[in-house]
Amino acid sequence: MAKAVCFGEIMLRLNPEGYQRFVQAAKFEASYAGGEANVAVSLANYGHNAFYVTKLPDNEIGQSAVNDMRKFGVDTGKIVRGGPRMGIYFVEKGASQRPSKVIYDRAGSSIALAKREEFDWESIFQGASWFHFTGITPALGGENPEICLDACRAAKKMGLTISCDLNYRKKLWTREEAGRVMSELMPYVDACIANEEDAADVFGIHAEGTDVGSGRLSREGYISVAKELSERFGCSNVAITLRSSISATDNKWAGMLYRDGNACFSPEYLVHIVDRVGGGDSFGGGLIHSLLSDYDQQKAIDFAVAASCLKHTIEHDFNLVTEAEVASLAGGNASGRVQR
Amino acid sequence: MAKAVCFGEIMLRLNPEGYQRFVQAAKFEASYAGGEANVAVSLANYGHNAFYVTKLPDNEIGQSAVNDMRKFGVDTGKIVRGGPRMGIYFVEKGASQRPSKVIYDRAGSSIALAKREEFDWESIFQGASWFHFTGITPALGGENPEICLDACRAAKKMGLTISCDLNYRKKLWTREEAGRVMSELMPYVDACIANEEDAADVFGIHAEGTDVGSGRLSREGYISVAKELSERFGCSNVAITLRSSISATDNKWAGMLYRDGNACFSPEYLVHIVDRVGGGDSFGGGLIHSLLSDYDQQKAIDFAVAASCLKHTIEHDFNLVTEAEVASLAGGNASGRVQR
Amino acid sequence: MAKAVCFGEIMLRLNPEGYQRFVQAAKFEASYAGGEANVAVSLANYGHNAFYVTKLPDNEIGQSAVNDMRKFGVDTGKIVRGGPRMGIYFVEKGASQRPSKVIYDRAGSSIALAKREEFDWESIFQGASWFHFTGITPALGGENPEICLDACRAAKKMGLTISCDLNYRKKLWTREEAGRVMSELMPYVDACIANEEDAADVFGIHAEGTDVGSGRLSREGYISVAKELSERFGCSNVAITLRSSISATDNKWAGMLYRDGNACFSPEYLVHIVDRVGGGDSFGGGLIHSLLSDYDQQKAIDFAVAASCLKHTIEHDFNLVTEAEVASLAGGNASGRVQR
Amino acid sequence: MAKAVCFGEIMLRLNPEGYQRFVQAAKFEASYAGGEANVAVSLANYGHNAFYVTKLPDNEIGQSAVNDMRKFGVDTGKIVRGGPRMGIYFVEKGASQRPSKVIYDRAGSSIALAKREEFDWESIFQGASWFHFTGITPALGGENPEICLDACRAAKKMGLTISCDLNYRKKLWTREEAGRVMSELMPYVDACIANEEDAADVFGIHAEGTDVGSGRLSREGYISVAKELSERFGCSNVAITLRSSISATDNKWAGMLYRDGNACFSPEYLVHIVDRVGGGDSFGGGLIHSLLSDYDQQKAIDFAVAASCLKHTIEHDFNLVTEAEVASLAGGNASGRVQR
Amino acid sequence: MAKAVCFGEIMLRLNPEGYQRFVQAAKFEASYAGGEANVAVSLANYGHNAFYVTKLPDNEIGQSAVNDMRKFGVDTGKIVRGGPRMGIYFVEKGASQRPSKVIYDRAGSSIALAKREEFDWESIFQGASWFHFTGITPALGGENPEICLDACRAAKKMGLTISCDLNYRKKLWTREEAGRVMSELMPYVDACIANEEDAADVFGIHAEGTDVGSGRLSREGYISVAKELSERFGCSNVAITLRSSISATDNKWAGMLYRDGNACFSPEYLVHIVDRVGGGDSFGGGLIHSLLSDYDQQKAIDFAVAASCLKHTIEHDFNLVTEAEVASLAGGNASGRVQR
Amino acid sequence: MAKAVCFGEIMLRLNPEGYQRFVQAAKFEASYAGGEANVAVSLANYGHNAFYVTKLPDNEIGQSAVNDMRKFGVDTGKIVRGGPRMGIYFVEKGASQRPSKVIYDRAGSSIALAKREEFDWESIFQGASWFHFTGITPALGGENPEICLDACRAAKKMGLTISCDLNYRKKLWTREEAGRVMSELMPYVDACIANEEDAADVFGIHAEGTDVGSGRLSREGYISVAKELSERFGCSNVAITLRSSISATDNKWAGMLYRDGNACFSPEYLVHIVDRVGGGDSFGGGLIHSLLSDYDQQKAIDFAVAASCLKHTIEHDFNLVTEAEVASLAGGNASGRVQR
Repeated sequence: MAKAVCFGEIMLRLNPEGYQRFVQAAKFEASYAGGEANVAVSLANYGHNAFYVTKLPDNEIGQSAVNDMRKFGVDTGKIVRGGPRMGIYFVEKGASQRPSKVIYDRAGSSIALAKREEFDWESIFQGASWFHFTGITPALGGENPEICLDACRAAKKMGLTISCDLNYRKKLWTREEAGRVMSELMPYVDACIANEEDAADVFGIHAEGTDVGSGRLSREGYISVAKELSERFGCSNVAITLRSSISATDNKWAGMLYRDGNACFSPEYLVHIVDRVGGGDSFGGGLIHSLLSDYDQQKAIDFAVAASCLKHTIEHDFNLVTEAEVASLAGGNASGRVQR
Repeated sequence: MAKAVCFGEIMLRLNPEGYQRFVQAAKFEASYAGGEANVAVSLANYGHNAFYVTKLPDNEIGQSAVNDMRKFGVDTGKIVRGGPRMGIYFVEKGASQRPSKVIYDRAGSSIALAKREEFDWESIFQGASWFHFTGITPALGGENPEICLDACRAAKKMGLTISCDLNYRKKLWTREEAGRVMSELMPYVDACIANEEDAADVFGIHAEGTDVGSGRLSREGYISVAKELSERFGCSNVAITLRSSISATDNKWAGMLYRDGNACFSPEYLVHIVDRVGGGDSFGGGLIHSLLSDYDQQKAIDFAVAASCLKHTIEHDFNLVTEAEVASLAGGNASGRVQR
Repeated sequence: MAKAVCFGEIMLRLNPEGYQRFVQAAKFEASYAGGEANVAVSLANYGHNAFYVTKLPDNEIGQSAVNDMRKFGVDTGKIVRGGPRMGIYFVEKGASQRPSKVIYDRAGSSIALAKREEFDWESIFQGASWFHFTGITPALGGENPEICLDACRAAKKMGLTISCDLNYRKKLWTREEAGRVMSELMPYVDACIANEEDAADVFGIHAEGTDVGSGRLSREGYISVAKELSERFGCSNVAITLRSSISATDNKWAGMLYRDGNACFSPEYLVHIVDRVGGGDSFGGGLIHSLLSDYDQQKAIDFAVAASCLKHTIEHDFNLVTEAEVASLAGGNASGRVQR
Repeated sequence: MAKAVCFGEIMLRLNPEGYQRFVQAAKFEASYAGGEANVAVSLANYGHNAFYVTKLPDNEIGQSAVNDMRKFGVDTGKIVRGGPRMGIYFVEKGASQRPSKVIYDRAGSSIALAKREEFDWESIFQGASWFHFTGITPALGGENPEICLDACRAAKKMGLTISCDLNYRKKLWTREEAGRVMSELMPYVDACIANEEDAADVFGIHAEGTDVGSGRLSREGYISVAKELSERFGCSNVAITLRSSISATDNKWAGMLYRDGNACFSPEYLVHIVDRVGGGDSFGGGLIHSLLSDYDQQKAIDFAVAASCLKHTIEHDFNLVTEAEVASLAGGNASGRVQR
Repeated sequence: MAKAVCFGEIMLRLNPEGYQRFVQAAKFEASYAGGEANVAVSLANYGHNAFYVTKLPDNEIGQSAVNDMRKFGVDTGKIVRGGPRMGIYFVEKGASQRPSKVIYDRAGSSIALAKREEFDWESIFQGASWFHFTGITPALGGENPEICLDACRAAKKMGLTISCDLNYRKKLWTREEAGRVMSELMPYVDACIANEEDAADVFGIHAEGTDVGSGRLSREGYISVAKELSERFGCSNVAITLRSSISATDNKWAGMLYRDGNACFSPEYLVHIVDRVGGGDSFGGGLIHSLLSDYDQQKAIDFAVAASCLKHTIEHDFNLVTEAEVASLAGGNASGRVQR
Repeated sequence: MAKAVCFGEIMLRLNPEGYQRFVQAAKFEASYAGGEANVAVSLANYGHNAFYVTKLPDNEIGQSAVNDMRKFGVDTGKIVRGGPRMGIYFVEKGASQRPSKVIYDRAGSSIALAKREEFDWESIFQGASWFHFTGITPALGGENPEICLDACRAAKKMGLTISCDLNYRKKLWTREEAGRVMSELMPYVDACIANEEDAADVFGIHAEGTDVGSGRLSREGYISVAKELSERFGCSNVAITLRSSISATDNKWAGMLYRDGNACFSPEYLVHIVDRVGGGDSFGGGLIHSLLSDYDQQKAIDFAVAASCLKHTIEHDFNLVTEAEVASLAGGNASGRVQR
């Protein structure tokens, strides 16, 4: 059980019930989520001492986010309170040929306006062995690129392993901005996580032979992307998620872990989707647990992919599964028979 | 943006939540729907000035139907208020091998008892370019066959294009009644819409080589039906929906548009169903938009089928999609990937 | 319409809404269920005079169970009231690769603590022609093995046909206890029902060539199991359910009825699951109806499998379908087309 | 425990959740209710063998009404099935100065169209000691006045006691019609129940010194009304409910029982209302139980008023209380302290 | 039926269900509301041709607000679409000694960032006779003070009557800012609406002898405030709401209308609260209807107070009552008896 | 901020929604509660480092209780996991004259079967300054009386202050058992909390001049009870809650704190009840905070009573209020005006 620190935003997630469209909703389900917060919950579920660092407004909505993190075992003692608001995002669940929709309302949030001096990284990292962030955090703007850099420097100095999920968000910044800022942060990163588009969007690294729109995936192309990321930034582990979207209801899902010149692919799962949002983050959470647990390369990617396969069957962003549940699926028990 | 007028019934739709059976329901979801009202909402969603004409009781339940139409942009200014009640129908959602069930309670409704003099078609059609009704409206009985005839005559005189969805309902009238009444109305109809059974039920026109029960569909058979409808009644456009029901959960869905002796078939979609009721009406709505927009024959049928494919993923009867969403699917974007 | 008596437990079933995990649930759906109670409801639905015999606490929760049975037409006049509590079980619905989970909290229930003298079987069986119980009831312990024996003896003496679903529950007793107790009861049983694991667990009878985990099913293996059960205990009918679990969402489902040395297999259904719990019991209910109705062997197994196929599409344990609905599916109408 | 028969309509009751207005409702709570059905449920709750007689359509909505009655212990074995539809009524719960609203949609129901020959009163009344109906049933029209007369004659001949709640409904018939029909039926009635307006509306019997609008109630006036009813029709018991409506949220509630020239008044309760609909019927149910139990005059009215006081705290029409609960309140235990 | 234009913000309102606290909420009820939007809905309910003018983001959340206004009959054709977001506010319903809480998240909204040139007031006011805004709109900052001034000038020039509800919001601006800006706008205002604190907060006009905290209200004090407002700004009508908060559950509610040196007080209502938010706006809506209808002074204030009394019994901000319902209460029918 | 330890049971609480009776419930709201757990949550809300000690089954239901405690800031690190089950209790909310009902199903729980050696009190109390338990814990039976004694001895030895709420539960033990066991524990108790019946039930100490049933309360009587408790067991603080139950909806609520021979009474609140369960525990939580904060005697009782007054307005057992909210009410701000 390691102390692991995640840093980023946490938002109020609002989604209509079931398959309702936004214009039909008389109620929104309220949960709290964010790329790094989702990872923190995964790590707590796997038994780690997970800390989440962010800034939240000092009102009841901010408190509700704190409470939700605490509920799932995340230590919220280092969260800064203050500032004007939490980011919000609206999710409409798609089905069959109708895609899911996400509307962000995150500008002007407390974390986006946070100041470097509000985070004492030496204190935060005391006793920790892992630091995780994603490309969304610097994309929030303001002092966040510098705060990420502060955190990376402190983490590296204090001997933590650092992971980063590229997570490019075109609504938050341009490819150019992302490339410039992430190029500064990546040299600190030991484990890099990306999906099929991130490397191209952020660093212009393209997987040849792959056409995301058509759903064709080339194993060779992914290996070449991982190799390039690994070599350009010195990441010892590069993990890539492989999603084939048959429809909003059915996806194929797999992953690849590249390490020391070798690529390991997980089995591919055909997933009947309950809630797809947070799928990538649950892969990150599983991968970090694999690396913290010194799993071998194949077991590492298998655990990460099984974890995120299960996430697709769970409502809302948090991947509420135990290590034993993930291990059971990773071990081949995929028949879904009732457990009494 | 054209002014389009739809005429028919609008009912209170009551369905248990989720997959509950009627006898399990402690609550009913309440919405408002009807074959022509569903088309009116589609047209409003695509940016047209859609008017709905019907008669509704002057109480809060009738007002709720008016409000629901207004919510989705339909002009309700020509709705007649009065009479005893609204029709009601109960829907139980099927799944897998269990079929959906619809129970109608529509006798004695305000629209069924409406009088010819209550509808001033010249005033209603002022400035309009399209009139739509379905075979359900004359089937309501009373003066409705005459009212439909009044409307068709006025529409034709004022230069509107007229569309009709045959929509045979065996609970409302016999095949003989339907054939007699519809044969009077069809000569006014420019665009005729039908499903795989309507032409046979109403006019005795059979698609050879097709066995609806077995799910086998013959393209040639459908063309022969459309040709016969087109020639018998002089319809310039005949559109037919092609549904293969694998189960209550999964359907194949396609359509064909016959014009000037040529038949265009849409691609076929495999649809994972959220709510199947209103599927045919959403095809009609898409087709009318195609024709109002002067789409070419292939684009016209592709838009109509994509529109109705999406309807199957939306709760309740109304097809709450935008023109852009339909166009995206019709353009080939069927992977259901999340839109952020 | 025959009088049929079922004896066993009925529990409060609590499940989170939709696909929520237990830790997400702010509400539980409350229903009442039990292996034999589910059969009683099926028999009432098919028009029989079904009695349920159990012991329930004399409080409002016990009364709610009585009311739920009454609602679905079961005669509750012979239920004994008293004792400390009802059993409870918690169900979490799985999806795709995530299995459903059942947590039992049934120790110390009124029925588990019931006394032999509380059940006057001669009075209970007055006018009845069928008695049904399952292997769960003696497994509840206390005097229940003796009570079951009392019931079987009285039933046999009074000329009732007796059916038993082996239903082995490893949380309730060991294989050894089950084998010993069930071996005493089975000689009274005319119709024996089992799933793919029960015969092995209880009597050490294995279907060769079948690996439940892998999902491979051998028809020959099942026949050998049925033959062995039939010959060892003199059961004139042995019915076995055949489930292939593709995932928690999709199962294949079929059954086999062995009689007089002949085995009849039903068609296999691919079922998209709404609620899988109670599936086996609904097979038992269908089979008993088949036998009470003197259906021929093929029709008997077809009805039982169609009944239980439909159960998988219905929320909660009770199989709320009519004889006509089952007969329609058993007759080949599996397309799930809307019934208006 | 006596066999008691109630005859009348049972409707589907639809109400928005909580204090929503009709136009706000996306869902309706569904329950089943009717003036006489509510009484039948009360009698079953007090331990009587209560039968309900009506006619319901042979579809799932009709079956749901049957199931709901069965759930609460009413014997539905004499209900006739067939005809086109069930009546429906919509209820909007008022609060403070905003009154509750009821919209009826009951025309053309199966019971309204029922035929005399469908009810075999000799068979229905076999072994029964009480018959109850209300003024609503003949007001449904068609053959219902004759059917009520048939029932009264048979009941009287077979020695049953007959009770009738005047229950004038101005939407169903005029004062003149009511007066004429009820005057024929009343001579058979032993126990007459009325509220503060019924006697005036139906028979022109006015309580002097009482202004319902203003809320002023005169005990003398009520006694004079009861005396007149008793003398004109030979009713041995006349019971009148006394409601003072402070607001839609708070009412004062009491009752009076007139017998042999003496009037007994109950205590008056100040009720904080949960659901007021069915309040009068629960008074009738309590009174009939009192009379069946041979309570003395004061105890009889106290029980009836306590029963109906409790009804005002229960959602939907049925008065789901036990005899013990009513007796506790009637005995003076009105503090509402938690019962553990 | 007059054309009336309201201008201001409309926000997404999110409140937990029932009496839940924010930290308990797994769902939020979603509705749309705002001080001026609430008035527009009132006016539409009373039969006026109510237009709402605002700026909303061009996404589905903005569209949902448009749809909600349309549903209740408001013309949304003049709403500007664009900008980054809608304001949001969170409401927690209080009870007894626990106060309701409102958390605003309205900074950076599309309307707050709107530009003067986006509103063509001459076109908007074509054919209109009334313009309404509140002190909240200029308080939104940016160009809104100027936009309000533009609107007032155009309205005055085009002969509209102008009403303004002072509605001071201390979270949006200081008393000094409010005083400065509102002093520029008030000379255009014909009808001024205020509550017991606004005049003091904005203009430093104090009602002597009144202590809001203690709940003591002095009629003389209110008259002096109205007189001062009337004289300082030349308002022909000044209306003041008088709220005595007994608890979060029970309030006393009344109002006063000052005109030509005379003050008319309404009766005082004791209100059992369902939802208190929007109470003041419903008073404004009622008052404007009174003035548009040329009611005499007493009837005008009675209608406005009855309207807002009813609002306290309705969920969410909009006052969903008809003119007839308000008139009934204003006419003295306050007993809340069921309307059948 | 002090470390405070609470020890006892935590149960799954199940209640129907709103005012539904048990037999109407298709859903139960699920929360977690217990006399001492409720106090722990209160202490965490007031900023203390609150630990909860209990034993919970090692399944998802037990985990859900842990998560709920964590959510509200309680440290669950010392909870023992294992054993068969959690206690459950069912709550039906009363209204007006209908009392709330509580049905316990707590026999055989993990905590009831816990062993002395499972609790290492020296480790648990490390750094703590307060220990709280109630009379319910020893009443659970098994080794719980000894475990409580172990805890009291360790706490006393380690210098903690000890509080105990007598909380007599007649369903758990007899008055004699309670008197014997509690008499052993009370000498360790510094602060004793009781309601109007506990002292009589447990120790036979009666408040003269008070008749709980009638609602009459004598201040002198309560003082004599407190004096007796204080003197007999050497408690430095004795606090008594004073509840007058007008109805299930409206209660009067006050309290008294006796110290050094002086009695301080709080103001009395008239409370409109949202949820009354947990009211007494919230008084205990407030009182402990007062004592930990060294409030003077009057302020101490005022805070405790204001805290518990607010609890009556909050759904479920936990008193989800902040210190500031309680202080505001205790300071006299009881008008319930909206806080924006």
